[in-house]
Amino acid sequence: MTSIDQLSTPALVVDKATFEANLDAADAVLPGDRLRPHVKAFKSTAIAAELARRGHRNFCAATPREIEGMVAAGHTDDLLLANESLDLARLGALTDVASITVAVDSDTILEAAVAAGIDQVLIDVDVGLPRCGCSPEQAPKLADLARARGLTVRGVMGYEGHLMMIEDRAERIEKVAESMAVLAAVAVEVGGDIISAGGTGTFDVNTVATEIQAGSFTLMDSDYARLDGPFRPALSVLATVISVNPKGWIVADAGIKAIAMDHGNPIWDGGDVLFCSDEHATLVLQDPGQWKVGDRVRLTPAHIDPTVARHESLWLLDDDRVVEHWPVDLRGW
Amino acid sequence: MTSIDQLSTPALVVDKATFEANLDAADAVLPGDRLRPHVKAFKSTAIAAELARRGHRNFCAATPREIEGMVAAGHTDDLLLANESLDLARLGALTDVASITVAVDSDTILEAAVAAGIDQVLIDVDVGLPRCGCSPEQAPKLADLARARGLTVRGVMGYEGHLMMIEDRAERIEKVAESMAVLAAVAVEVGGDIISAGGTGTFDVNTVATEIQAGSFTLMDSDYARLDGPFRPALSVLATVISVNPKGWIVADAGIKAIAMDHGNPIWDGGDVLFCSDEHATLVLQDPGQWKVGDRVRLTPAHIDPTVARHESLWLLDDDRVVEHWPVDLRGW
Repeated sequence: MTSIDQLSTPALVVDKATFEANLDAADAVLPGDRLRPHVKAFKSTAIAAELARRGHRNFCAATPREIEGMVAAGHTDDLLLANESLDLARLGALTDVASITVAVDSDTILEAAVAAGIDQVLIDVDVGLPRCGCSPEQAPKLADLARARGLTVRGVMGYEGHLMMIEDRAERIEKVAESMAVLAAVAVEVGGDIISAGGTGTFDVNTVATEIQAGSFTLMDSDYARLDGPFRPALSVLATVISVNPKGWIVADAGIKAIAMDHGNPIWDGGDVLFCSDEHATLVLQDPGQWKVGDRVRLTPAHIDPTVARHESLWLLDDDRVVEHWPVDLRGW
Repeated sequence: MTSIDQLSTPALVVDKATFEANLDAADAVLPGDRLRPHVKAFKSTAIAAELARRGHRNFCAATPREIEGMVAAGHTDDLLLANESLDLARLGALTDVASITVAVDSDTILEAAVAAGIDQVLIDVDVGLPRCGCSPEQAPKLADLARARGLTVRGVMGYEGHLMMIEDRAERIEKVAESMAVLAAVAVEVGGDIISAGGTGTFDVNTVATEIQAGSFTLMDSDYARLDGPFRPALSVLATVISVNPKGWIVADAGIKAIAMDHGNPIWDGGDVLFCSDEHATLVLQDPGQWKVGDRVRLTPAHIDPTVARHESLWLLDDDRVVEHWPVDLRGW
């Protein structure tokens, strides 16, 4: 196709070799349905298609729009809204063409699913992260209510998000085992055959889950990459140097609107990121005179999920050659 | 139109009375062309139209796409790309239908403007913020080169962004005066009649600039609102409570993908924001039992510009009634 030099900036670029190595590493540990890829991380049905080709055909999502987009792209086998929502009528309208399951953690969410005509649920259980999920005690009652309302209870879900970033592997294994023991006990009481949990940080240490909900491993956060896992950052933000200041900095045309900052500044291998403003990154370095306006830099974001959500396109690179355009077609809510 | 209860969440909502009071306050200090509204803050041609109705018909922008969108919406009188770009051919294609001026701070950017067929420039000068802008010494040479290449030099530009958040007004006045004295001196050497500078934080203390580039005042950052100015936050993110945990928190369906986090957590007047993850805000409070799933909360973002850029729509509210839909039609680059 085209050269990287022809891309308008800022642009999200994906290194093909790293991306494929990440997928290979996931396949090796989590073949087929053992991985339920989370589309919230990459928001692109093109990447979902690549995962489906590798045998991972059941997906999960965080928003109704992600589910709608996956159905529109033909990924209809087994879609899980791994999040609570009251905006379920949109998904109920798709149950004729797709198998859709939703997470529920309260009577109110459950009744919204019933009203929407969604007939498959997972009971979402609090496993230690202060976010969604009912208490372990409440879960069997909610499952009984679901069955009484005519729904199929496929099993349980729990997200040990608070344990993803524990750097010491032995400690991570121990804490995940504790958290998942709760979920496994609840699963027996709830019934069904799914225990859905995990993420990129625990993909190979969560041995209780029947399926792992991971997505970030595909493009990989630089923050996650501090862990011991096999995944490497494949995503960077390509930017153009638009100003060179002899006082010691250069300015690239990618800032807060192009790069998620919630986990901190992006990483630049040419020097330090002084600060990012809305549309700019100011980069400091020993010898700015080596740089000229028009040069390109690549910034590696600390957190990929919200970075991808800011862009319309991902560009797949084989070295410096653009070999594919992946629309970010699952943005919004 | 509709009720706020019918909006899908997360949704960006604007309080009409506060928005109009913010515009009134700006009008009083900066009538007509004294204000050059910066569309990067609100990214909506509907808000631009409201400002134009009030007599502010010259706009500035940070990206080529913002300029393209403004031209498409008929705002063609006097558009300034207040940023350096090499992607100028797109704007050169619009010079038959719109008056377009671009900022230049190097020979390379200047030649890109010439190549694109853009014939009006401002010389962008470094006034202390470590970002774009040539040195004061370089500015007259760049102006000479521009004239030699057949361009009209309309004046100078300089952004004192490093002074916007000085809380003590007297100190802010003093520092802005120092910074702008540099720009005023350069303006004499450069020629032209425009001194374009300032922002919401210095809108009434920058008395050197012939026009103030402000945009955030319309919707207003909660961070900026700490200053002494007359502007109040008009923008909030409407979210739905999707989970209530008796341990002491509730979860709303608006997170990092819906709210800019670079200036910190949003503000919630019902309690504390414990943390935001991709699609959730976990809110802690004394008595979570007072809340139920389906309730709505409003979160006030610390930084509006990158928050707006994450959404497709702004909804104008008269109390709890939705009175207008403003598409966020200037997103992207």
